[in-house]
Amino acid sequence: MTTVVIRGGRVLRPDMTVDRADVLVDGETGTIRAVGDVPAGDEVLDATEGLVMPGLVNAHTHAAMTLLRGYADDKPLDRWLREDIWPTEAALEPADVRAGTDLAMAEMIRSGTTAFGDMYFYMNEVAEAVEAAGLKARIAHGIVTVGKDASAAQDDLEEGLYIAKSHDGTADGRVRTAFAPHSLTTVSEEQLAAFVPKARAAGVPLHFHANETRDEVDPIVAERDERPLAYADSLDMLSQGDFLAHGVHLDETEMGLLADRGTSVVHCPASNMKLASGMAPVQRLLDAGVGVALGTDGAASNNDLDVFDEMRDAAMIGKLAAGDPAAVAAETVVRMATEGGNRALGFDGGRIEEGAAADVVVVDFDAPRMTPVHDYVSHLAYAATGSDVRHTLVDGRVLLRDRKLTTLDLDAVRERAASRAADLVDRAG
Amino acid sequence: MTTVVIRGGRVLRPDMTVDRADVLVDGETGTIRAVGDVPAGDEVLDATEGLVMPGLVNAHTHAAMTLLRGYADDKPLDRWLREDIWPTEAALEPADVRAGTDLAMAEMIRSGTTAFGDMYFYMNEVAEAVEAAGLKARIAHGIVTVGKDASAAQDDLEEGLYIAKSHDGTADGRVRTAFAPHSLTTVSEEQLAAFVPKARAAGVPLHFHANETRDEVDPIVAERDERPLAYADSLDMLSQGDFLAHGVHLDETEMGLLADRGTSVVHCPASNMKLASGMAPVQRLLDAGVGVALGTDGAASNNDLDVFDEMRDAAMIGKLAAGDPAAVAAETVVRMATEGGNRALGFDGGRIEEGAAADVVVVDFDAPRMTPVHDYVSHLAYAATGSDVRHTLVDGRVLLRDRKLTTLDLDAVRERAASRAADLVDRAG
Ligand SMILES: [Zn+2]
Ligand SMILES: [Zn+2]
Repeated sequence: MTTVVIRGGRVLRPDMTVDRADVLVDGETGTIRAVGDVPAGDEVLDATEGLVMPGLVNAHTHAAMTLLRGYADDKPLDRWLREDIWPTEAALEPADVRAGTDLAMAEMIRSGTTAFGDMYFYMNEVAEAVEAAGLKARIAHGIVTVGKDASAAQDDLEEGLYIAKSHDGTADGRVRTAFAPHSLTTVSEEQLAAFVPKARAAGVPLHFHANETRDEVDPIVAERDERPLAYADSLDMLSQGDFLAHGVHLDETEMGLLADRGTSVVHCPASNMKLASGMAPVQRLLDAGVGVALGTDGAASNNDLDVFDEMRDAAMIGKLAAGDPAAVAAETVVRMATEGGNRALGFDGGRIEEGAAADVVVVDFDAPRMTPVHDYVSHLAYAATGSDVRHTLVDGRVLLRDRKLTTLDLDAVRERAASRAADLVDRAG
Repeated sequence: MTTVVIRGGRVLRPDMTVDRADVLVDGETGTIRAVGDVPAGDEVLDATEGLVMPGLVNAHTHAAMTLLRGYADDKPLDRWLREDIWPTEAALEPADVRAGTDLAMAEMIRSGTTAFGDMYFYMNEVAEAVEAAGLKARIAHGIVTVGKDASAAQDDLEEGLYIAKSHDGTADGRVRTAFAPHSLTTVSEEQLAAFVPKARAAGVPLHFHANETRDEVDPIVAERDERPLAYADSLDMLSQGDFLAHGVHLDETEMGLLADRGTSVVHCPASNMKLASGMAPVQRLLDAGVGVALGTDGAASNNDLDVFDEMRDAAMIGKLAAGDPAAVAAETVVRMATEGGNRALGFDGGRIEEGAAADVVVVDFDAPRMTPVHDYVSHLAYAATGSDVRHTLVDGRVLLRDRKLTTLDLDAVRERAASRAADLVDRAG
């Protein structure tokens, strides 16, 4: 199989207009070869009543946390972490991470996600899982040194660097890496000062949580008399290609820093709402010239990995945060989920045009929920869900055909995840 | 066909526990005859890997506005109404309302909604549509007299009363009615004082919009030196069985009034976010003893009619409004969407137990998004979408079987709605 023709649908163009066109993708080069009237291909995917659009990017998640989906909801963040998440994560085994990541990828492929940014543990498992499933991912070992003795802390930092160095560019370039101190409060200033330069020397970007809650921001300000991102900048943690999750509580100078440095913010609206963290100033970030992507965060604080939901949530909460129904419009969230995500993760997808990476999804427009169609982009933002995705391709390879996964055995993935999840909770309990 | 057995699933009990049980429903009486080990029935619905739960209630919508879904998004409320919605609605014909309502009902049945509260125009069409589709609805003609001459205003008020009187209890009791002044600012004090007693005499409840935006509340307070709901109460508009949409901006005394009077609030979180109206104090309302239901509002400000989305939105924004991730928990939103909705609309559904109305849905739990299952109620609130609904029954009659509509021809409904919508926009433009 070298070429696939996506036939009979409409195409979402980079300028957000929509017209009738077929798309020819090349599985050898992994790119889109033609859009419009295209020659025959080795395989045909039907796109009748569908919209051909760039694959969605879930730029911040902890994929294997699918095992803890719905395990503990509706609790204050500190109790949730201390009583439920951390004790359970302490009992994690590599096979849990593999099972949870496979489940996450099954869900993501079925809901039109073609690339994700992952930060978790046992990342060798994740690299293998991503290679096998055919998705793209920028993966990182999440480093938490607070509460660890010097030797364990050093091991954790080294593991972060090892993962970043050893997997970057593997799986034909589908797996990229990052260096990921969990947040500015869970790794010390000395440790960051020692290891950030090593990450820079290795040529990998940084991925970390920042400015998520007031409880995280206020102590930094109190202790250092500077904003968290000024502190991060003093440690060389804000560069082109770096991306931080959340950015809920930001002041003007921090927004300016992000714009100047070219660091992307991964907005996680569902997680921010579910944990009552606050409303990120998304329209102001965009107006300031900051790159904004979308992320689901882990399934335990969402509880799904559907970027269509995240687009809708981002538009909704973005208007509320701005006090303006014109803020964070439909087109804006579609761009955040596609171009914005690829920019944050450093992948070359996000556009249906000749030469772009063939990370492509076909969305059904034949549900009553999608009728009538005054505006395709509006429906992507406000009416579609991941269940409307018919086909998903990454680098020109079909990973979902007529809602059937081609690289993962759905029943086996679900069974293994359910069994590992039950076992994990027993072990942790 | 008189009895249906729903076999092989788990059941969500009124106390929100879940266990393995079959359900026998009686199509003659429209009630649940048995839960547990049940005798054979005339028809069997497979519920394997599914959860049998009460049908959802969409307690505030304008069903036929599906025709305007995505027609104009991301605009300030006043411009959206003046430039887009009102001119288009002025061109509405009865057949548009029928087409839009049929489309709305197709979407609602497919997403597990068994009853809805509707306020719109040409309500004879709606009554007929509801009777044919098999749903339950409490319908009302939405009265707007502001800007009309005395004779047109009188006609509108009389139409509201006529609809309320002429359809109540029709379709074997599935169609109920309300008297619906659109809001406290679109019908004058004199008109309300004249007609509310007539509605009371007819024995129908009131359904109106209240306290939706600051722009609506502040002028009332400025002009009358009293809160909107104190004004409403002075006009006898808050009684047991009445229900108002939104209730975003409420003070303590208004919450107390609602609790004392037994008036339900229909919380419409998606609409409130999309129009940047604000965050309703849902946890405080519940704590004050107010009955709270969920509504999608019209499809033009949502943009779908999926009450699963509304449950998730309500939990999310409820936590944010309270600044507390423990607020508006999963169980709370499931109760709002079932018991709360039935209480608001005055229907006897919302519980899977012997003798209750057989308004029942079966939700698939076999998607990756629903795996693993640590907690069924969490998944209903945070992970499920309307697309996971397998069967829908109203009064024991199967309206959706294995995702196929039994009372509506989906293709015809979609085609007619798309065609009427295009024609409507042409006529209005
Ligand atoms: Zn995170
Ligand atoms: Zn309304």
